[in-house]
Amino acid sequence: MNERFSEAIAKLSQTFGKALSTNPTVRQQHAHTMSWIETEAPDAVLTVTNKQQISEAVKICNAHKMPVIAFGTGSSLEGQLNAPHGGLCIDMSQMTNIVRIDAEDLTATVEAGVTREQLNEALRHTGLFFPIDPGANASIGGMCATRASGTNAVKYGTMKDVVLCLEVVLPNGDIIKTGTRAKKSSAGYDLTRLMIGSEGTLGIITEITVKLFGQPDCVGSGLCHFNDIDGACQAVMLTIQYGLPVARLELLDGTQIKACNAYSKLNLQETPTLFVEFHGTANGVAEQAQIFAGIIEEFGGFGFTYSQDESERKKLWTARHNAYYAAKALKPDFESLSTDACVPISRLAECVGQTVADIKEQGMTAPVVGHVGDGNFHVLLLLDKNNPDDIQKTKDILSRLAKRAIAMDGTCTGEHGVGQGKRAYMALEHGDEAIAVMKAIKSAIDPNNIMNPDKIWFE
Amino acid sequence: MNERFSEAIAKLSQTFGKALSTNPTVRQQHAHTMSWIETEAPDAVLTVTNKQQISEAVKICNAHKMPVIAFGTGSSLEGQLNAPHGGLCIDMSQMTNIVRIDAEDLTATVEAGVTREQLNEALRHTGLFFPIDPGANASIGGMCATRASGTNAVKYGTMKDVVLCLEVVLPNGDIIKTGTRAKKSSAGYDLTRLMIGSEGTLGIITEITVKLFGQPDCVGSGLCHFNDIDGACQAVMLTIQYGLPVARLELLDGTQIKACNAYSKLNLQETPTLFVEFHGTANGVAEQAQIFAGIIEEFGGFGFTYSQDESERKKLWTARHNAYYAAKALKPDFESLSTDACVPISRLAECVGQTVADIKEQGMTAPVVGHVGDGNFHVLLLLDKNNPDDIQKTKDILSRLAKRAIAMDGTCTGEHGVGQGKRAYMALEHGDEAIAVMKAIKSAIDPNNIMNPDKIWFE
Repeated sequence: MNERFSEAIAKLSQTFGKALSTNPTVRQQHAHTMSWIETEAPDAVLTVTNKQQISEAVKICNAHKMPVIAFGTGSSLEGQLNAPHGGLCIDMSQMTNIVRIDAEDLTATVEAGVTREQLNEALRHTGLFFPIDPGANASIGGMCATRASGTNAVKYGTMKDVVLCLEVVLPNGDIIKTGTRAKKSSAGYDLTRLMIGSEGTLGIITEITVKLFGQPDCVGSGLCHFNDIDGACQAVMLTIQYGLPVARLELLDGTQIKACNAYSKLNLQETPTLFVEFHGTANGVAEQAQIFAGIIEEFGGFGFTYSQDESERKKLWTARHNAYYAAKALKPDFESLSTDACVPISRLAECVGQTVADIKEQGMTAPVVGHVGDGNFHVLLLLDKNNPDDIQKTKDILSRLAKRAIAMDGTCTGEHGVGQGKRAYMALEHGDEAIAVMKAIKSAIDPNNIMNPDKIWFE
Repeated sequence: MNERFSEAIAKLSQTFGKALSTNPTVRQQHAHTMSWIETEAPDAVLTVTNKQQISEAVKICNAHKMPVIAFGTGSSLEGQLNAPHGGLCIDMSQMTNIVRIDAEDLTATVEAGVTREQLNEALRHTGLFFPIDPGANASIGGMCATRASGTNAVKYGTMKDVVLCLEVVLPNGDIIKTGTRAKKSSAGYDLTRLMIGSEGTLGIITEITVKLFGQPDCVGSGLCHFNDIDGACQAVMLTIQYGLPVARLELLDGTQIKACNAYSKLNLQETPTLFVEFHGTANGVAEQAQIFAGIIEEFGGFGFTYSQDESERKKLWTARHNAYYAAKALKPDFESLSTDACVPISRLAECVGQTVADIKEQGMTAPVVGHVGDGNFHVLLLLDKNNPDDIQKTKDILSRLAKRAIAMDGTCTGEHGVGQGKRAYMALEHGDEAIAVMKAIKSAIDPNNIMNPDKIWFE
């Protein structure tokens, strides 16, 4: 146990008994970073089952200036869960109550530990669904904290768009609600959106009210190939500019398709490939598919395969669904590091093109997969962590990608958040004066700096 | 001239010359409240043409702790422009540059004084449009400040949804950008959404980058009548629950239709009436209209008249377009006071029903017009300001409506903002602890409390 917080830990232990653990393995597990950033474990882990416990624990931590880090499922990618200054990890994974489903209002209220799959399972009988899908079966609290999005965002938006209001435990232990179930409001500061994406630095999200959507009458999915990245990106640009309401629009580059063929025993042409999905009425979906077919043709797209049948659709999208594991399997003994960036759609072809060229030039393996309908794409860098040359090349590629995206009036992180991994680019992206505003807000709400300190910016 | 700020005003006058006015008429005009709240004029009005001037003026005001209130077109409804503690009004109406239109990215960047009609005029040749329509031809800066929305919000969202980033002059004169042109980002605190709806209390918005949308291939509009409010609201609920992507869905109650018949020489049945609009492809729009016709039939809707022809559509919607002036014309010598509330859609029928009953019981005239697709509706109270009884009844109706909406897990203001008019309900809606967070943010960003003080909450 870290001596720093022995008094606080004694008090927590006295209050919470066995729910508090200082076991080194448990502590290590709760700082798992899903990245190359070194694990920095908290001093203790508290497993909670309700907000009152969180409030009480936070009050103790605040009195002792002990950092507090909320843990959902541990799927964040930029070191958000690390405890560089030690502290208490509050494990929310037992807070899995679905508080209410108001099907007639298209809303649901859930505790922060509910995962997106759990919510969708609970919604199945209602004909409604929760659309945000970041890949991992993340907790909805965690998805709020990092402002997650994913494949469906091009149609349904990101967490900032689908959350109506939050319940939050503040650093002083107060529990607030940030809004109501009204679909819109102009009643004061938007604390909901302030909390979303703040990565646990302002408070701990305990309950979330989200918008739901009707399961589409009809879903149509397909894929098509291009001879080069540029053609694929141009087709994406026109699709978005045309206003076609695609539900998903994903790019896999040649390297990624090659990986998918090997991993999923497919036989796809190993060139840049677009995966598309449409939601709507049967007529509407058919019409969208037809328009899309016309657009891709204009940019040299070929081999457009398309279906509205569920099992056919699943087969077509196999490559996309397994992309992450397929990519990792390219070099099974290597570490993988996922990064993302997002640029205005007109700069997408250029940004992806330069990034792919950079990877090639460095001789690295790094498939590109993108939620390109939003101008957002991911690079999965495969590296030998014991090879300093690999590490340096990876750092350089990451840095150039972040700066490239920012130079194109985009962002160095479209959906993974800042955590520890992207702090170096915040001043470049926002400017010192805007960062100063963020810091002022942080100090005002969390004067003792206990909430997930040393994240988003360097301290 | 007010003695309070004579030094600051002397300095401003020296710096800006004739752009600064202390003329009483000019000052009165700039506090015009569009409401029954007494006008409280600023001490001086500065007409600016660029952000550097604003920065410079704000620095002077900050040094002298002189309040600063930004003015767009003066169409806010809750006393947002009043200067209860005097100060400087910064008139932004000359900042009308359209900085850039990036049609390929579906974005535009405009100065804060650009009105929505000016932007749409500039976009005409691009095939794109800016959808937010709060009724008044408001400035886009002002629309950000109050988190405006209006008839199109049910499909396109509110200002919080369509703004990508802002440029803001902070109370210390710093100029920040709150984001980039990337469609999504998870790079730190969402300063964009924090500024939107903050009613000028945190800074002055000087430039706005908004999302644009493709002009729909086809627009279909119609109207239908109901025997009672409840049937109309039930039809709205099912339409939304069904997920029908209506572009507008508006309710006018019997009193409002009566007003419209008289004002626009129409012959509509004087019962609750829904106005609907669909955007999409010709097939898609026809399909939506058919589904809608089925829904309204279920709830006793009748007389559904519908067209995709532009001049026909305009004729059908005449009543809606002139609703405000028609309502005022019911009692031309009276004052009118517009209020709004927003509730979860399942509570809409009940909330509107109780409100209409309350108005009737009080013997007041107050047509109801609503963006009911969002659960949002307006009441236009007509009152004789010289009759204390009318004033008391109006206050009581307003207060009961605000509390009713909050009790239904809704908001006392869906789109007009808080200003001075709705401050009394903020603690009830948000709770003291959440208000304390808002105040802490305000103090952190604006320690001298110069930015539109005494708004949103009482000081």
